[in-house]
Amino acid sequence: MTDERFWPRNFAALPDEYAAYERARVVVLPVPYDSTASGWVGSREGPAAIIEASGNMELYDIGIGGEPYRLGIHTLPEMAFHAGGPEAMVERIEEVVGEQLDGGKFVVTLGGEHTVAVGAVRAHAKRVPGLSVLAFDAHADLRDSYMDTPYSHACTLRRARESAPVVQVGLRSAEREEHDLIRERDLPFYSPQEFRAAGAEPIAGQLSDSVYITFDLDAFDPSQVAAVGTPEPGGLLWDEVSELLAAVASRRRIVGFDVTELAPSLGPRANAQLAAKLTYRIIGLALRE
Amino acid sequence: MTDERFWPRNFAALPDEYAAYERARVVVLPVPYDSTASGWVGSREGPAAIIEASGNMELYDIGIGGEPYRLGIHTLPEMAFHAGGPEAMVERIEEVVGEQLDGGKFVVTLGGEHTVAVGAVRAHAKRVPGLSVLAFDAHADLRDSYMDTPYSHACTLRRARESAPVVQVGLRSAEREEHDLIRERDLPFYSPQEFRAAGAEPIAGQLSDSVYITFDLDAFDPSQVAAVGTPEPGGLLWDEVSELLAAVASRRRIVGFDVTELAPSLGPRANAQLAAKLTYRIIGLALRE
Amino acid sequence: MTDERFWPRNFAALPDEYAAYERARVVVLPVPYDSTASGWVGSREGPAAIIEASGNMELYDIGIGGEPYRLGIHTLPEMAFHAGGPEAMVERIEEVVGEQLDGGKFVVTLGGEHTVAVGAVRAHAKRVPGLSVLAFDAHADLRDSYMDTPYSHACTLRRARESAPVVQVGLRSAEREEHDLIRERDLPFYSPQEFRAAGAEPIAGQLSDSVYITFDLDAFDPSQVAAVGTPEPGGLLWDEVSELLAAVASRRRIVGFDVTELAPSLGPRANAQLAAKLTYRIIGLALRE
Amino acid sequence: MTDERFWPRNFAALPDEYAAYERARVVVLPVPYDSTASGWVGSREGPAAIIEASGNMELYDIGIGGEPYRLGIHTLPEMAFHAGGPEAMVERIEEVVGEQLDGGKFVVTLGGEHTVAVGAVRAHAKRVPGLSVLAFDAHADLRDSYMDTPYSHACTLRRARESAPVVQVGLRSAEREEHDLIRERDLPFYSPQEFRAAGAEPIAGQLSDSVYITFDLDAFDPSQVAAVGTPEPGGLLWDEVSELLAAVASRRRIVGFDVTELAPSLGPRANAQLAAKLTYRIIGLALRE
Amino acid sequence: MTDERFWPRNFAALPDEYAAYERARVVVLPVPYDSTASGWVGSREGPAAIIEASGNMELYDIGIGGEPYRLGIHTLPEMAFHAGGPEAMVERIEEVVGEQLDGGKFVVTLGGEHTVAVGAVRAHAKRVPGLSVLAFDAHADLRDSYMDTPYSHACTLRRARESAPVVQVGLRSAEREEHDLIRERDLPFYSPQEFRAAGAEPIAGQLSDSVYITFDLDAFDPSQVAAVGTPEPGGLLWDEVSELLAAVASRRRIVGFDVTELAPSLGPRANAQLAAKLTYRIIGLALRE
Amino acid sequence: MTDERFWPRNFAALPDEYAAYERARVVVLPVPYDSTASGWVGSREGPAAIIEASGNMELYDIGIGGEPYRLGIHTLPEMAFHAGGPEAMVERIEEVVGEQLDGGKFVVTLGGEHTVAVGAVRAHAKRVPGLSVLAFDAHADLRDSYMDTPYSHACTLRRARESAPVVQVGLRSAEREEHDLIRERDLPFYSPQEFRAAGAEPIAGQLSDSVYITFDLDAFDPSQVAAVGTPEPGGLLWDEVSELLAAVASRRRIVGFDVTELAPSLGPRANAQLAAKLTYRIIGLALRE
Repeated sequence: MTDERFWPRNFAALPDEYAAYERARVVVLPVPYDSTASGWVGSREGPAAIIEASGNMELYDIGIGGEPYRLGIHTLPEMAFHAGGPEAMVERIEEVVGEQLDGGKFVVTLGGEHTVAVGAVRAHAKRVPGLSVLAFDAHADLRDSYMDTPYSHACTLRRARESAPVVQVGLRSAEREEHDLIRERDLPFYSPQEFRAAGAEPIAGQLSDSVYITFDLDAFDPSQVAAVGTPEPGGLLWDEVSELLAAVASRRRIVGFDVTELAPSLGPRANAQLAAKLTYRIIGLALRE
Repeated sequence: MTDERFWPRNFAALPDEYAAYERARVVVLPVPYDSTASGWVGSREGPAAIIEASGNMELYDIGIGGEPYRLGIHTLPEMAFHAGGPEAMVERIEEVVGEQLDGGKFVVTLGGEHTVAVGAVRAHAKRVPGLSVLAFDAHADLRDSYMDTPYSHACTLRRARESAPVVQVGLRSAEREEHDLIRERDLPFYSPQEFRAAGAEPIAGQLSDSVYITFDLDAFDPSQVAAVGTPEPGGLLWDEVSELLAAVASRRRIVGFDVTELAPSLGPRANAQLAAKLTYRIIGLALRE
Repeated sequence: MTDERFWPRNFAALPDEYAAYERARVVVLPVPYDSTASGWVGSREGPAAIIEASGNMELYDIGIGGEPYRLGIHTLPEMAFHAGGPEAMVERIEEVVGEQLDGGKFVVTLGGEHTVAVGAVRAHAKRVPGLSVLAFDAHADLRDSYMDTPYSHACTLRRARESAPVVQVGLRSAEREEHDLIRERDLPFYSPQEFRAAGAEPIAGQLSDSVYITFDLDAFDPSQVAAVGTPEPGGLLWDEVSELLAAVASRRRIVGFDVTELAPSLGPRANAQLAAKLTYRIIGLALRE
Repeated sequence: MTDERFWPRNFAALPDEYAAYERARVVVLPVPYDSTASGWVGSREGPAAIIEASGNMELYDIGIGGEPYRLGIHTLPEMAFHAGGPEAMVERIEEVVGEQLDGGKFVVTLGGEHTVAVGAVRAHAKRVPGLSVLAFDAHADLRDSYMDTPYSHACTLRRARESAPVVQVGLRSAEREEHDLIRERDLPFYSPQEFRAAGAEPIAGQLSDSVYITFDLDAFDPSQVAAVGTPEPGGLLWDEVSELLAAVASRRRIVGFDVTELAPSLGPRANAQLAAKLTYRIIGLALRE
Repeated sequence: MTDERFWPRNFAALPDEYAAYERARVVVLPVPYDSTASGWVGSREGPAAIIEASGNMELYDIGIGGEPYRLGIHTLPEMAFHAGGPEAMVERIEEVVGEQLDGGKFVVTLGGEHTVAVGAVRAHAKRVPGLSVLAFDAHADLRDSYMDTPYSHACTLRRARESAPVVQVGLRSAEREEHDLIRERDLPFYSPQEFRAAGAEPIAGQLSDSVYITFDLDAFDPSQVAAVGTPEPGGLLWDEVSELLAAVASRRRIVGFDVTELAPSLGPRANAQLAAKLTYRIIGLALRE
Repeated sequence: MTDERFWPRNFAALPDEYAAYERARVVVLPVPYDSTASGWVGSREGPAAIIEASGNMELYDIGIGGEPYRLGIHTLPEMAFHAGGPEAMVERIEEVVGEQLDGGKFVVTLGGEHTVAVGAVRAHAKRVPGLSVLAFDAHADLRDSYMDTPYSHACTLRRARESAPVVQVGLRSAEREEHDLIRERDLPFYSPQEFRAAGAEPIAGQLSDSVYITFDLDAFDPSQVAAVGTPEPGGLLWDEVSELLAAVASRRRIVGFDVTELAPSLGPRANAQLAAKLTYRIIGLALRE
């Protein structure tokens, strides 16, 4: 029974009926980690901000015509951070995500910096044969090492690529080495302009049946999400992202996802609201009947 | 005579020649009320922020080719808030707005939360036969009661609808019950996409000759106005709103309006500037010869 | 067993071993309510800020030489707010606090505005014979009605006084009527200067055996806590408050308390840290063997 | 008659009965000027912040046992700023203050940077024979020219000294040249420590019968007022300032004063509250029977 | 040799190899001046914010396919500000820019308010025969005098026009007098809508061979750059500006430019990032082979 | 020669005459590192904020009667951060500090989190026989490992103690294990109250002739410095710290120091100003004749 005198602080502010672990199809895993941030810091506060904002959402999602919360969404406690370096943190995330997957849950990882995706991708790739990754990101994230570690946020997609093939949307900033690598290997990258020209079809076409989505919020234009450590002008708009996600969901199976890099103190609270709605939307798209 | 050594803090920073009550065609009524806010709070500071920003406007409005301040705009003192509950506050607003209307003024109500519109709509509906309401809002605001009161900001358009028919533009978030109600009764709602597809014509066509405009600033996309308590991605842009307002003004008579929900601490000051210019624009559209 | 890979977001970031409801001697009740705020608003965000900050505390309290968390501290979900007016909200708080008291818990209420104390005081006064109240506050809060309601934050101690006798410390702002009332009835009020002159003895002496503490954080000097809606210069310092609390605890039994009026956006985060440590300190003082 | 449905935005939020020009003994002149600020900028927003905060004050001043608002306090519109350089702005201020003095008003100038005091001091010195100045300031402000102008905020007291003798309290930062000048001419300066050692007596003793007070808020310790452009640790506390002001008022006649340098975005709102209460206190001290 | 243990705080965070004065083709001149700001103040902090943000850029510019930093970019120390009035400051800027031009450098001036452009335009116009100016601005800036000085930020393009012909893009706010002047003299102004309709061709066509670009960031829509003192809704988008700049660069020679009016505290840090990338982009466009 | 048209952005805004490396007795080393922060993050922005604020200082230090800048103070570029984990970062700092010491410089390290002190202490301890450390800190920092690393900010003084004996002032928070360790080994710790009772004598007495000072700014009361990641109420005041530093300097030789943990976004700018003045003060005390 719902006690209406309380307003729970979990994802979507759900009463026990929908938030209890056992009955929940979905778990939300907050990972407040930002130790390798090289731009502006603060994404450690992203998960709490997204969860707080999610309590303001209306729970019928007009965009998909349904109420995803009825699947049951449990919010796990925040992960403790490993201060010894990012490699150990990535391992911890892989372990926790793996346990949840093994327990039959659909896992939503909320960063923190984009590095947290490496652990989540690895956990999924080991369990889902033929997994591919759809990455939203303004940056190539293809460096083999950055600031003396292969687990920098700037290496995320290079590491992810070691677990599964990656298609990226939103790219508009890269170093020359990354740019050359993309050309040499003909990696599937779409700048916002290329995406607008091509539409969702070819992107969905390059993905396998089972798709993991890793979402660095800096893929969005800063007018949509300014609250990221390394914003880049000229990014994606909400409606564009919504349409691409719907197109992918209608053709492929989304098996898990993360939403990362929200650093709430760097922009208005509306940014956390967008991140909450994005999270809720992808849950709905991934699991609707 | 204007004493140029001073810079008055009223709407548009007007000297007495244009701001004195007797000669003013327009009164601006600031209502710093936000007691039922369920998301982020702070719209009580909206009126002061709009008035402050209005002092930075250039007073020739290129968009309409005129100088609305020449009509005379008097800024009333801020309304005191009734802490006993929203119903009494709505009554106080209706009373004050009614007195101004009876005195022959064109009334501009600056919120504060959207609830303040209920009082303003009632005052106008009782005096203007055949009034219809054009509502800008991201949310349906159609709940019969919310958080234990029928005068919550989430019930504003349900209450307004009891006084006059409402056409709404900007809708992109609703609860299932609201959504079902809209469908059942075929209420005239336009999401941003529907508005873009339909254009201004059908909207103006559904309004009566005398139109009251209630403007919840969250109808705008958060890229235009982030400083609202319940922002929703995917909203209206400035140019779109400007064009719709011009289209309505050219076909109907605007008899009064409100601009609500600016919570200045939640976004950049540019948001207050937009709200000031919007207010000035509607004054110009409503009263131009 | 504690899973050290997680960092729970409850008061003091306690693992289940110490945070589970059944084993907890103490419950923390967050009440994010600020609808009657007449100054600057935002104390609705106080409880979440205090709980977040409490996760940064070191859990051995040097000041009292103990580890209060070993008592067990359970954090309840946030109370939903009643938007219909403060009277109904006060009733809801009284009801919830009463249920917890009847279940044998020691209740810590975190505001929100000071008005929430009225419900908590009533619940305690009905159950604890001979209760007296120690109030920390910069303002007399003695108005019979303010802004059209007897349940304004400016009436809190007038209402509390109807349930139990009140001794107040920190007073330095009042209206003439309040000032006259204090003189006429010889009410026990201590300004900061009077408290410094008198010491803790006479204050403890005016309290009964069972004491409820209501703490409006504006009793502190703004140098200690600026993040309140109606700050007043010339207030109490941390060490002074600590000493008074210790003196009272050594002579009387503290049966419950509240900490209210933290509006985190109005001051630095250090203010939330102080409020967390104050809360933890009073728990320790009230329940130590 | 007071219309209680409104809450006027003037100093102390007074109804017409007490705020109308004709009946007011006191005028408050806001001067939002900060063009020569060399540290952090923003004192142009000081007057509006002080006036806003003043609406939150309780109007019985416990510290002096009276209600200064009964004298009548009229708030003038903000002065327009002269962008051509500080000298012209100082002249404009002198002119406006002089007109008010000639009309029999007690003038309170709210800055803006400390430079505005030069105009106010000159206007008073020309009309009050034997005027002396009590200056609160962390800095000597004795440079003959700074950043290429003799009207920099860093020259304020050098300029003031050309109109009347100055006694300064709060000094704790100076350049060597200023320091040498003080020693050579044996100018009356009190650091916070010297003031604590000496008490109020010698300060009052060095002032003439008619005293103008110029208050640069950086005289306060940053724990009391952080929101100034050039804060200095180790300053005065509220109680100390209150006592000195009371001591001076009991021995001398205060003929006018200014409160300057509040840059509200640089500190918490509690700083504006202190500035409002300080202003109200000095009005009360200067004009009590 | 680059010492990778350090991260220099200059434009683009370049090591000595690329940042040393002698080898640098480009100098960046920070001018933290905002004394005539009439709206919200703070552009004095713009240069430092742009330089800080520039350290987060990836230095291969995908948009133009090159690495402009290889030209060598030296960051000069910040200019001291002349507090005596804007005319003297403009002269100082003209002098410093002129010295750099005479030394063979390509000069990038970072404001500070738009007024700083007057000095930079004059220095270029005296040295580059047949210079024309491309101005990005939301406002006409055509007043002959404003707030008592001909060197107000609101007169910038009137002053610039005395040195060279000006084509302006982004206009959407003007006073009647400015509007009339534009019509009378048929001055080349493009509102955002006119620019969208016309494309880059006619704009480039109205410019001479040698072009100086003066960029008031309020030309951008506030969704792109909110952090300006006088934001105006309805402005230019990043992609539009990028395309116009590329079109101009392919047809004309850019001989110098400024980027002004970033007031970082008025918007998210993403705005400084855009300004940094814009600066880097124009360097690349101006000087690519 | 000083070019007065510029205002250099280095520590104390010194012209080349005093800032050039060769002639400088002092080097300031900014280390923007905060990867192990467990509370609120942001001390990576501390060094830049301190340097910016230092430009507002008046350079004659009244407190010591001298002009320390005449010694020559060179500001090094910011250190790059090693994202692979804190151990490698500590090594890098030790290396850089050591090189400067070997070059005969007096080194001032600006954090960044307190962890950076470990590298600085090691570099000094290896070169200065019989070194002792005077630590200002609110926390014991004595954990052997925290959050999975022995190089957490919470282990700083445990690590420092491995290089040299430490006397700590300001302690008011510790875990039980730390508290027990202090008692068992009778380590020299002074809480603020103990320091007030004992005075400076016994502290100076426990230090060796050559003293390194490590200053975690959270030793200060949050009223003096709120902008730290783990603030604790009840700390030290400016005047107290000033007196202790003077007392130590008069009896011992200060051979180097660091100032750490300023996270500027967590408090007012006045906090950076205090940190700048503290830094300048210690330079003056350490090196005066």
